[in-house]
Amino acid sequence: MSVTKQILISEVGPRDGLQSINTILSTDDKMQWIRAEYEAGVREIEVGSFVPATVLPQLADTAEVVAASRELTGLTVAVLVPNFRGCEAAIAAGAHKISIPLSMSEAHSLKNVKKTHSAMLEEIKRCVQAVQTVPSDQRPHFEVGLSTAFGCTLEGQINEDFVITMAQRVLDLGVDEVGLSDTTGMGNPAQLERLTTGIWKKCGESKLTGVHLHNTRGQGLANALRAVEIGISTIDSSLGGLGGCPFAPGASGNIITEDLVFMLEAMGFDTGIDLEKLLCVRREVAQLLPNEAWYGFTSLAGLPLGWSQQAKTR
Amino acid sequence: MSVTKQILISEVGPRDGLQSINTILSTDDKMQWIRAEYEAGVREIEVGSFVPATVLPQLADTAEVVAASRELTGLTVAVLVPNFRGCEAAIAAGAHKISIPLSMSEAHSLKNVKKTHSAMLEEIKRCVQAVQTVPSDQRPHFEVGLSTAFGCTLEGQINEDFVITMAQRVLDLGVDEVGLSDTTGMGNPAQLERLTTGIWKKCGESKLTGVHLHNTRGQGLANALRAVEIGISTIDSSLGGLGGCPFAPGASGNIITEDLVFMLEAMGFDTGIDLEKLLCVRREVAQLLPNEAWYGFTSLAGLPLGWSQQAKTR
Repeated sequence: MSVTKQILISEVGPRDGLQSINTILSTDDKMQWIRAEYEAGVREIEVGSFVPATVLPQLADTAEVVAASRELTGLTVAVLVPNFRGCEAAIAAGAHKISIPLSMSEAHSLKNVKKTHSAMLEEIKRCVQAVQTVPSDQRPHFEVGLSTAFGCTLEGQINEDFVITMAQRVLDLGVDEVGLSDTTGMGNPAQLERLTTGIWKKCGESKLTGVHLHNTRGQGLANALRAVEIGISTIDSSLGGLGGCPFAPGASGNIITEDLVFMLEAMGFDTGIDLEKLLCVRREVAQLLPNEAWYGFTSLAGLPLGWSQQAKTR
Repeated sequence: MSVTKQILISEVGPRDGLQSINTILSTDDKMQWIRAEYEAGVREIEVGSFVPATVLPQLADTAEVVAASRELTGLTVAVLVPNFRGCEAAIAAGAHKISIPLSMSEAHSLKNVKKTHSAMLEEIKRCVQAVQTVPSDQRPHFEVGLSTAFGCTLEGQINEDFVITMAQRVLDLGVDEVGLSDTTGMGNPAQLERLTTGIWKKCGESKLTGVHLHNTRGQGLANALRAVEIGISTIDSSLGGLGGCPFAPGASGNIITEDLVFMLEAMGFDTGIDLEKLLCVRREVAQLLPNEAWYGFTSLAGLPLGWSQQAKTR
């Protein structure tokens, strides 16, 4: 384990968090959140989703949020899109990274985006074509998130070979990368390793560098630990653990950015994030969303005595 | 990672949990808890502590609890003792396993057991002599828990070489084994590996097989994962995460037995514990302690759809 190893934390709170709650933050409040995390050192933020405002009014201003976030030098501005239409909007808005979920459970896919697997593959193909029309120096990174890859509340266990096959199929369509999503928080570290190495063997290591984990059964950090141990370099997480998936019952709770940064920095990984500042950001954002449940342990316990020295002596 | 690998979960709730709360459970209620966990497959339980009743009235009936617990065939009945006097009482009661804490932080040692390091080493020496007077077929396993080994709320960082040296010193006194305790929840997986392998190199692998972790900063399961990955075979945990250390401010929260069993069983480790039964035990014990904070995620989310099949197909 090299002490200089860098891990990119991709903050998903402004998308996954806000889509899960009823409070609608103003664009200014969202930008206060995004800027504060940027100033604490966060360098990738999923700032919203191009979904019809009738479905998720919380994210109706995503185009404005993308535009304002693009002003933050060095920040990768990521968005989620459910379909081709959303992808077009994301390209028009200038998002740096576009993710589309492809649920490994067809039952979940039908609930979440009202599409079968074959309809989603068709949609992804059209997205790839749209992304490829963008001049290469401005072209967004296009990723397919293999959601419910670790299990589904509707279908139960998901066949691991099927996940690997689907990864290959979407990569064959020309997407830049796939991501593994534990949408329902059913995953365990051994399964994460099997799925990751399975996809790596079939498709190449550069085709899967990030995971999106939930803490539904308290396994979030353990799964993240195994991920970074085997060479995953991007971990999604959410400030205060805000979020989950509104269409997968019981799937509450992203992994908590603060606790993840604590683990990684304490172990000698470099996240580029100043944890003391991040804990201040948490307090600041919690004031914007006073009625929501905020999770996390490091924020309650505080940083250990000697934390600064620890950072210095590494 | 072998699927047949066995991990012993040592339930510490009846000791670490009950010492941290004001409610005093009756001996009958404690035995209801202990029997229920035993019936769910738990095979080591720390049932109490031989501390003066004036200090911890919650544990005043430890001798009776030990006696009743000894009736459960195959259960290792463990107790904590703060000093020689407690050790004598533990031997007289017939405990199978006796642990004494030696805090790596002298400031914490003074607060917790009112003794310096050298006074504690003297105490441990006397305990070893007392244990050795017991006929070998009835002799309890005597362990020193290296508490605050991962950091102290009073002293901050603890020198890792010092921890390894102290492990060697107590083993030289004739104790059977040392354990690593993250009393303050400051530990991280890399540190756990350094401390464990450091002690193994100096003292032998059989001299350190168990860890006692806290979830104060949400790192409990990640630390447990690294522990079992490197070959630790006993993990302490507490039903519902009840407990912590009353004399180390902020040191709340043992790791949660239910979530630990979920992780290990899902990964293919064999804990011998029936998780569905254990979740019932949690509900049962929570009724005995209705005013306490109960932690844990698996209990809230429930077992994943397909869990039984998962267990069968392994």
